[in-house]
Amino acid sequence: MAFGRRCPYGARVIDVALRPADLRPAEVAVVIDVLRATSTATQALSAGYGRVMCAETLALALELRAPGRVVAGERNGTKPPGFDQGNSPAEAAERRGDEFVLATTNGAPTIVAAAGLAPRVVLACLLNLDAVIRAVSSHSQADVQIVCSGTDGAAALEDVYVAGRLSAALAGERTDAALVAEAVVRGFPTAFDALAASRDAARLRAVDLGADIAACAVESVLDIVPTVIAAGGGVATVTAGGSSDADSGAQLGDTVRV
Amino acid sequence: MAFGRRCPYGARVIDVALRPADLRPAEVAVVIDVLRATSTATQALSAGYGRVMCAETLALALELRAPGRVVAGERNGTKPPGFDQGNSPAEAAERRGDEFVLATTNGAPTIVAAAGLAPRVVLACLLNLDAVIRAVSSHSQADVQIVCSGTDGAAALEDVYVAGRLSAALAGERTDAALVAEAVVRGFPTAFDALAASRDAARLRAVDLGADIAACAVESVLDIVPTVIAAGGGVATVTAGGSSDADSGAQLGDTVRV
Repeated sequence: MAFGRRCPYGARVIDVALRPADLRPAEVAVVIDVLRATSTATQALSAGYGRVMCAETLALALELRAPGRVVAGERNGTKPPGFDQGNSPAEAAERRGDEFVLATTNGAPTIVAAAGLAPRVVLACLLNLDAVIRAVSSHSQADVQIVCSGTDGAAALEDVYVAGRLSAALAGERTDAALVAEAVVRGFPTAFDALAASRDAARLRAVDLGADIAACAVESVLDIVPTVIAAGGGVATVTAGGSSDADSGAQLGDTVRV
Repeated sequence: MAFGRRCPYGARVIDVALRPADLRPAEVAVVIDVLRATSTATQALSAGYGRVMCAETLALALELRAPGRVVAGERNGTKPPGFDQGNSPAEAAERRGDEFVLATTNGAPTIVAAAGLAPRVVLACLLNLDAVIRAVSSHSQADVQIVCSGTDGAAALEDVYVAGRLSAALAGERTDAALVAEAVVRGFPTAFDALAASRDAARLRAVDLGADIAACAVESVLDIVPTVIAAGGGVATVTAGGSSDADSGAQLGDTVRV
């Protein structure tokens, strides 16, 4: 494992990509799409799905259809034609198959993109906040980029908020983008307030999915660190790494390119 | 004047470019490089220089040398070879000629880039915060993008802070990037705290220019709204618009392309 190698800056760097275009090579990428892709993926793995296959496009997700696979995702917040279910963590919490295919507008493509730039990619949200902090902290020398999936390429307030929560809990030298995210955290009394103030929350309320906002604002109830184990062809395969497993390094191994 | 025309979103939008790569067409661009280019340009116009010519490169600035022109700027924070002075607002406050040429790493190129995308470009910092708010508010229908010059393409904490101060004072529908900037403001007790926490502040202290941080953190002492009046060939020419002049629309007229 080269996980412990020091970053080129001479000290461990904690950086935040405020939007996917800021993605850069890093030893560890922590991808956030708290409303809702990474919340849903975390919930699916917690429900017992063996893997979550994040697909860059709706078409790719439909191509992955197979017995035992549940095809989930959204366009404009709602379930696309031909899909089994939407992108709600509440739906993902009910296991209906062995594997979970997920195609979303922002989170899924960002996870795939991050897997192309970082050897280790984990998925974070509020549901698994403490588990991700423990897993990343256990590798205290690794250069980390926390990646906000954003919305249609632009910064999404709720992802920057969660990035700030993670950044503030990790030791290392912060970039200004990380300091921006940490200041955003101090600017809201609660996680729910930050999530609810976002445009994505407004969009969810507009399609009667407002209940998902509160569901995604619950903190550190799942001991799951979704970890990309293989990526290629527009699909990133994610399995559950508990934070205690991650301490052994087993769950934060290098991604296999396929 | 088409200044009052409504933006394509149907309501006035207040957006923030957290870094120059987020620049997009807008009716009004408000460019910030509080440490230090826009502070220095504002101070120069306040000192009585008739115009500030922002140059994209050091070479362009040197080509603009002429009798009565003071050539100022920085690379890595300090005065480049052949320049008359650095990028300190304190130096700019002493008038030594009729026109001020300014070439800096982040602010000057961002001002030139903004002038290529927005018909009206003004320069903001803390020194002229209230004057800029009054000038932009007087055109209450215009779509506004507040542009953070950042550092080497990445977000700079101090610029995002000032963007948040402006955004919070303007009426309109906010993008999530604007909400991020406003939350950053709530995350710091004072402007000085935000500026001093940035990497750019650390760089200034490292080259013994730490006094500039406090000088740039002084709020609303100059009634100057630096406004781009012409741009082309890598140079943007800026003159002083007082906020009362701006109310007449005279100082926020369309930029002339040259």
